[in-house]
Amino acid sequence: MKIGVLFHGSGVFDGTEIQEAVFTLLALAEVGAEAVCFAPDVNQHHVLNHLTGDEMPEVRNVLVESARIARGQIADLATISAHDLDGLVMPGGFGTAKNITNWAFAGPDGTILPSVKQLILDLVAQQKPIVGLCMSPTTIAKALEGSGIQSTLTVGTDAEASPYDINGIAGGMEKTGQVSAKKSVREIAVDPAARIITAPCYMMEASILDVRNNIRQAIDAMLAFIPVAA
Amino acid sequence: MKIGVLFHGSGVFDGTEIQEAVFTLLALAEVGAEAVCFAPDVNQHHVLNHLTGDEMPEVRNVLVESARIARGQIADLATISAHDLDGLVMPGGFGTAKNITNWAFAGPDGTILPSVKQLILDLVAQQKPIVGLCMSPTTIAKALEGSGIQSTLTVGTDAEASPYDINGIAGGMEKTGQVSAKKSVREIAVDPAARIITAPCYMMEASILDVRNNIRQAIDAMLAFIPVAA
Repeated sequence: MKIGVLFHGSGVFDGTEIQEAVFTLLALAEVGAEAVCFAPDVNQHHVLNHLTGDEMPEVRNVLVESARIARGQIADLATISAHDLDGLVMPGGFGTAKNITNWAFAGPDGTILPSVKQLILDLVAQQKPIVGLCMSPTTIAKALEGSGIQSTLTVGTDAEASPYDINGIAGGMEKTGQVSAKKSVREIAVDPAARIITAPCYMMEASILDVRNNIRQAIDAMLAFIPVAA
Repeated sequence: MKIGVLFHGSGVFDGTEIQEAVFTLLALAEVGAEAVCFAPDVNQHHVLNHLTGDEMPEVRNVLVESARIARGQIADLATISAHDLDGLVMPGGFGTAKNITNWAFAGPDGTILPSVKQLILDLVAQQKPIVGLCMSPTTIAKALEGSGIQSTLTVGTDAEASPYDINGIAGGMEKTGQVSAKKSVREIAVDPAARIITAPCYMMEASILDVRNNIRQAIDAMLAFIPVAA
């Protein structure tokens, strides 16, 4: 069972949320899946100092920085096809909305890397499950936009504390044609038709234990959509 | 119970081993300890491309890069005293031997940041436990060198596969006056007199599950040295 993991940098504010990425790799190993790590070979939108939040006058490459989390075991997204995979996990972090889409700046009206859009559409067409963690459901929404496929996605709930405007982001996903669901960090949203599982993780005020458990819950739900032979 | 976590960058080849750092934070949360993350405010020895292994013409700061793993919740080592902590965990990655000591280049004959040496000596004097993961036992060895304190430390075993010269590193630790023990990734070394626990983690050819379990094992052993009141 080969499960792709889509990285988009290394660090929550300008790349992949590191803890979510590591807990994804852990959960995949726990269920006996092989993680196939990859990232697009593009420059980051920007580089943020994670101590101060300030922008730094640097240029960093998404694939090269993602390799830090994966200990060098990572491929260029351009070499990956949906046929190589039995499923896909998309960890969060704002890299998904800065380096894959530009949702962080343009909201639902922005763009998405064509290679990521195609991979997601191919996986859905091949009936292979996709897990979107944290902010990544916005990237799934942009991928499905205009495809005729409507899925139910969550980025959290306004019923519990979040550092982010959950309702604003949920409204943006609706604007792309998707249905938004409200889920706490102890819950996941499962769309059985599109085989898409989403989990809020650090979109909510969550502990590291919450996030670890939320990801394991999502990976377990993904397994239910993978034929036993895979 | 407040346990310090000493970072030294973000990425196995020039900083903190990211997965070991995240599993340290996870294990501390699992046992109910508060993680106090800190790093020295110094520049990295160098920056390595984790995809190719090549050196990059960049300057990065250890504290700033470490903040990526800790989601910004990290302090300057200069603000931390042993009195603030009930124990310390030192994740691995070659940052410990490049940015804290220069063991990666000079072996046991090199230097160590005085602030890290002092923190380790103060913790031992205050009978507070220290966990050294992966390559970090070499930093403990440099800290204890010349102190009159002799501890038993492990960086792995030559009885199982390792990407590194375990015997060479163990010999270097002996040269600093320490005793080296051979342990697999399923084992830890516990020195009850110095209250120092060491675990091989990714110094061995280990799976992510091995490393996660090895760290949890070390954290559990650390707890045995902390008074219940703490």
